[in-house]
Amino acid sequence: MRLLLINPNTTTSMTEHMVHAAEDVAAPSTVVTGLTVTDGVPFIDGYYDEALAAAGVARAVRDADGEFDAAVIACFGDPGLFAAREVADAPVVGIGEASFALAMMLGHRFGVVSTVDRATPGLLDLVAHYGIASRCAAVEATEVGVLELNEDPDGALSAMEAAGRRAIDAGAEVLCLGCGAMVGCREALARRLGVPVIEAVPAAVRLAESLVSLGLRTSKLRAFGRPATLA
Amino acid sequence: MRLLLINPNTTTSMTEHMVHAAEDVAAPSTVVTGLTVTDGVPFIDGYYDEALAAAGVARAVRDADGEFDAAVIACFGDPGLFAAREVADAPVVGIGEASFALAMMLGHRFGVVSTVDRATPGLLDLVAHYGIASRCAAVEATEVGVLELNEDPDGALSAMEAAGRRAIDAGAEVLCLGCGAMVGCREALARRLGVPVIEAVPAAVRLAESLVSLGLRTSKLRAFGRPATLA
Amino acid sequence: MRLLLINPNTTTSMTEHMVHAAEDVAAPSTVVTGLTVTDGVPFIDGYYDEALAAAGVARAVRDADGEFDAAVIACFGDPGLFAAREVADAPVVGIGEASFALAMMLGHRFGVVSTVDRATPGLLDLVAHYGIASRCAAVEATEVGVLELNEDPDGALSAMEAAGRRAIDAGAEVLCLGCGAMVGCREALARRLGVPVIEAVPAAVRLAESLVSLGLRTSKLRAFGRPATLA
Amino acid sequence: MRLLLINPNTTTSMTEHMVHAAEDVAAPSTVVTGLTVTDGVPFIDGYYDEALAAAGVARAVRDADGEFDAAVIACFGDPGLFAAREVADAPVVGIGEASFALAMMLGHRFGVVSTVDRATPGLLDLVAHYGIASRCAAVEATEVGVLELNEDPDGALSAMEAAGRRAIDAGAEVLCLGCGAMVGCREALARRLGVPVIEAVPAAVRLAESLVSLGLRTSKLRAFGRPATLA
Amino acid sequence: MRLLLINPNTTTSMTEHMVHAAEDVAAPSTVVTGLTVTDGVPFIDGYYDEALAAAGVARAVRDADGEFDAAVIACFGDPGLFAAREVADAPVVGIGEASFALAMMLGHRFGVVSTVDRATPGLLDLVAHYGIASRCAAVEATEVGVLELNEDPDGALSAMEAAGRRAIDAGAEVLCLGCGAMVGCREALARRLGVPVIEAVPAAVRLAESLVSLGLRTSKLRAFGRPATLA
Amino acid sequence: MRLLLINPNTTTSMTEHMVHAAEDVAAPSTVVTGLTVTDGVPFIDGYYDEALAAAGVARAVRDADGEFDAAVIACFGDPGLFAAREVADAPVVGIGEASFALAMMLGHRFGVVSTVDRATPGLLDLVAHYGIASRCAAVEATEVGVLELNEDPDGALSAMEAAGRRAIDAGAEVLCLGCGAMVGCREALARRLGVPVIEAVPAAVRLAESLVSLGLRTSKLRAFGRPATLA
Repeated sequence: MRLLLINPNTTTSMTEHMVHAAEDVAAPSTVVTGLTVTDGVPFIDGYYDEALAAAGVARAVRDADGEFDAAVIACFGDPGLFAAREVADAPVVGIGEASFALAMMLGHRFGVVSTVDRATPGLLDLVAHYGIASRCAAVEATEVGVLELNEDPDGALSAMEAAGRRAIDAGAEVLCLGCGAMVGCREALARRLGVPVIEAVPAAVRLAESLVSLGLRTSKLRAFGRPATLA
Repeated sequence: MRLLLINPNTTTSMTEHMVHAAEDVAAPSTVVTGLTVTDGVPFIDGYYDEALAAAGVARAVRDADGEFDAAVIACFGDPGLFAAREVADAPVVGIGEASFALAMMLGHRFGVVSTVDRATPGLLDLVAHYGIASRCAAVEATEVGVLELNEDPDGALSAMEAAGRRAIDAGAEVLCLGCGAMVGCREALARRLGVPVIEAVPAAVRLAESLVSLGLRTSKLRAFGRPATLA
Repeated sequence: MRLLLINPNTTTSMTEHMVHAAEDVAAPSTVVTGLTVTDGVPFIDGYYDEALAAAGVARAVRDADGEFDAAVIACFGDPGLFAAREVADAPVVGIGEASFALAMMLGHRFGVVSTVDRATPGLLDLVAHYGIASRCAAVEATEVGVLELNEDPDGALSAMEAAGRRAIDAGAEVLCLGCGAMVGCREALARRLGVPVIEAVPAAVRLAESLVSLGLRTSKLRAFGRPATLA
Repeated sequence: MRLLLINPNTTTSMTEHMVHAAEDVAAPSTVVTGLTVTDGVPFIDGYYDEALAAAGVARAVRDADGEFDAAVIACFGDPGLFAAREVADAPVVGIGEASFALAMMLGHRFGVVSTVDRATPGLLDLVAHYGIASRCAAVEATEVGVLELNEDPDGALSAMEAAGRRAIDAGAEVLCLGCGAMVGCREALARRLGVPVIEAVPAAVRLAESLVSLGLRTSKLRAFGRPATLA
Repeated sequence: MRLLLINPNTTTSMTEHMVHAAEDVAAPSTVVTGLTVTDGVPFIDGYYDEALAAAGVARAVRDADGEFDAAVIACFGDPGLFAAREVADAPVVGIGEASFALAMMLGHRFGVVSTVDRATPGLLDLVAHYGIASRCAAVEATEVGVLELNEDPDGALSAMEAAGRRAIDAGAEVLCLGCGAMVGCREALARRLGVPVIEAVPAAVRLAESLVSLGLRTSKLRAFGRPATLA
Repeated sequence: MRLLLINPNTTTSMTEHMVHAAEDVAAPSTVVTGLTVTDGVPFIDGYYDEALAAAGVARAVRDADGEFDAAVIACFGDPGLFAAREVADAPVVGIGEASFALAMMLGHRFGVVSTVDRATPGLLDLVAHYGIASRCAAVEATEVGVLELNEDPDGALSAMEAAGRRAIDAGAEVLCLGCGAMVGCREALARRLGVPVIEAVPAAVRLAESLVSLGLRTSKLRAFGRPATLA
């Protein structure tokens, strides 16, 4: 199958990292293609960033429709997810919703280890938007920005551990890494904290593959029907 | 005061109509300036349309910041509202949220008379997003598109009456007109249905003026703080 | 327009203060008339006080109906608000609900700086009653009673600052002053805490004026229809 | 034990009927005393009626405190219940909440057969206020007023059956009779509809007796602590 | 009346204690019969224990149907309660739901003093299952296991006091003892903490007696109808 | 990987069918082993059936622990799911929760086409238990029993179509087949109704494989920690 991995921010190095993370877990027959949104922001930490990213995602999916069997939106806030569903025939999965879906099968309540605190209200909006707010115990920020994650991996891991500990104290039994760029530290963090930790991009890849293999596509009835403005 | 009225779709005739509706209720000292989003869609009926509109609104507000004392986003789905709050110093009001705020002071539960049914899930998302879902009895569509409203005003009014009746049967005691272009029919509809009917743009204008006169501005703490990507 | 400002407690000096606060923000053409409930309690801090105040408000509005274009109930718990809506033709606004309505346009979640902790459950009931509990981050009491506010203004301000800080730590981004008598300290508190602060009486005055100028009145369908016991 | 049965409306014949209904189920050692609120309304169908009734109840309980071991507020809307709890040392039970408590032990969701439709929003407020809205399938009105119940018992029963059937169709598995004056028809209605039917006054009497026999009294911590205005 | 008290765990000494607690509050005409589930677990602290206990309860009630006028399930998690309702004609009461029902009549929000923290998610599930989550301020564990309660009564009481204090700090105004074996300490705990404390078995006994005396039985419509697998 | 497929009812022919359905979608390297619960009921339609099935599942998983890499509980009500998670080291997936997880990625709200109406309250409990009630538009029963599905496949399909249509009218945009034995009709139903239709067993198989391939296991912190009664 052809899997389109869309990076909603404009930082191409992040696209490459996420494509590798996707390829690591994808089935041998899955071909992963990365797509970086142009005309947006270099990283996404709040409503303004999300708004620009969402439009970029919506346009990219619209233009690529027909060239992929499933798409993954690779930013934890799932910008443009519902818009993308309207303009694609193939299924579209957000890495945030995919993480939540798996987390809810592993623990009573989950927590999110996120980047900066200013984005926390938006993430709480997201879980409420999905109707699963009662399953989310906490969103805890590391205050390590997206682009700083690779600068000091050990420091980032310690910050994640501290944020994860706070989420656990608030009732989380399983943790979601709340940024597509948080890759490579899953096992270390799980070992330190003693709970399962979910990487977002791999989670979405496996769910997208599952939908395709089961012959499932986005419903075109009502909410995700094709827009009249494209008719 | 300087009031910026932003039309999130690209149809300039609609901007003009809405500016007039705003001027009709604005205080004498309020100067209303219309702004039409470019690079978007001609009307907004769903998530894809909203995504493009939201980015247009966010950019427009960002660029106009400092040139207005309050802004009104004149599409009932309030596209880009939270993004606009991040990039403006002055208060920003959505015509949907303004309608809901007044409606909740006039009846036990409110209904929305909207355009097309495919946008209903998005409007239900909106009231849930504002945390007021329990106050909304129903969203009922006329199936008269935004751009058709002026083509057959009598037919449109009859369709609104029928939709309003369904909302009332579902428990609504007050109605919101769910499109910025639904102007000029408020009194006729209220008379036919025997309930108060709220026009969205005038509601938002009065609330924006209220915020300014009370010296209130958007909180810059946390959710609506200035984006780091603009630093 | 004729604005009736009803003080639900029996302390006439408070009525005077609140009428002044109302006049400070009212339009030049608005005539504010104060009305002090008789046969009630000198201040309102709990369910018993509210019950007596509500009956006083209901009777006062019933008797004054026809003599005002809008009424404001000037106690933050909005005692008798729904009852007053049944017996009046003109719109009635509670200072609590008005504060919440504006607060929800300025921040992601709001907090309330209230008087005594024993009234906190009632205030939480109130936001739940309005269906907006998810937007309220915290109600924090100063433990400065209503009648003590003027005795030591500096102490009161410090207590408000501390309560406001706790509300912010709990997630509030904007604060409501939870008593009609908390006037004159809005700006100082906003400066100390760095968030917008809403005075309740002015908020309600502006919303009442907005409703009147838009030609909106309480729905008489169902919930707020005239009582049969008055027929 | 001494049981005070408070009729929140001013119709003394209703007090007598309800005292008899109470005595029919009370333990032999329970002495039921009826108390009719003065200075209120002859029947209670909406917020205005409730407001006047609540103040009457609050004052009556305050004045009678010490003279009863438990009190029952005998109007289905439980007017003044929380106020009464503040001013009494002995437990106070509302006939609405008592009905709901038992109903939740007999079926998955309950329905209410009420008097007039205009009071339905208030009853929905009530179940939401108690935090049990998800257990209430429907409130269905007979449109037979409180004072008409005895005029045409057969007609009233048929109206109750029709309302009960609607509640069952909406998901109710057990029915509460939503007025203290709906007595004597429980068994006939249960037989016709094939579901358990709960009379409100008897339910409250048994719960009040249960609380007393278990040595339980209203918590005086926080919400129901004695009012400062009575100090 | 014949009251069947079912101990869902296999520890017969606990059955005896709970039968005594039941007899202490039961009416003179009530005959309490204890029944210990066989083929289960010696105590119940989590989902696995509950699952085994629930099946034991369901089978026991099925086999005893016709031999009792009401049944009480004497484990605070109410294992098998809905199943038992399906297979019995007489009413069945859980000691958890009975405690909650009375607690909600005594305070604004209640707390639960429970045994071990690992069972807390299950208890939070329970209150959510009953639709009353908003009334529960906290579940706080003593970490004293069910079978250890009698080994060191003073230590257990101190642990209960500490847990109760935490629940009060979280907003509880009344406490439920979250284990059928927590008997004999109600008054001491209430005295130390200054709030009403509810023993679970006595609460359920009184509610079961109330249902029987009012002629109320489980609804056989829909949810609790007799299982087809028993036909 | 070794996948244990547990049939919670005692009908072995159903186990075989479900094993085949699992094998049809499983990866080549996945070995599916069927396990039929003994000592339960032949089909599961309500709380009593669920209670017996849940205990059977809990014991079966406990005894098989270590012999599988993931387990699937193949009854739509997910009986014993949380209990099984406590006693297994490998992940356990319910076919109900798996269906819901995928459905939420395909439509705004989902519907369930179930067997008999008496089980509807239990299914509504289930979605509420998972915290996703707002995403479920309707549960609609065919009134075709589990064991009758194969007797008249055409009649069953028509009944499913009618139930699916009702769910769509209530707002569903995607449908879950609410019984593990509803296999082989997915495509026909999707074609007739024009919405995606999800088969439960295949959904769960793919999610179980996804969890294993991502190295994810049930959290052993708190809710799903090993039971003390097994220590």
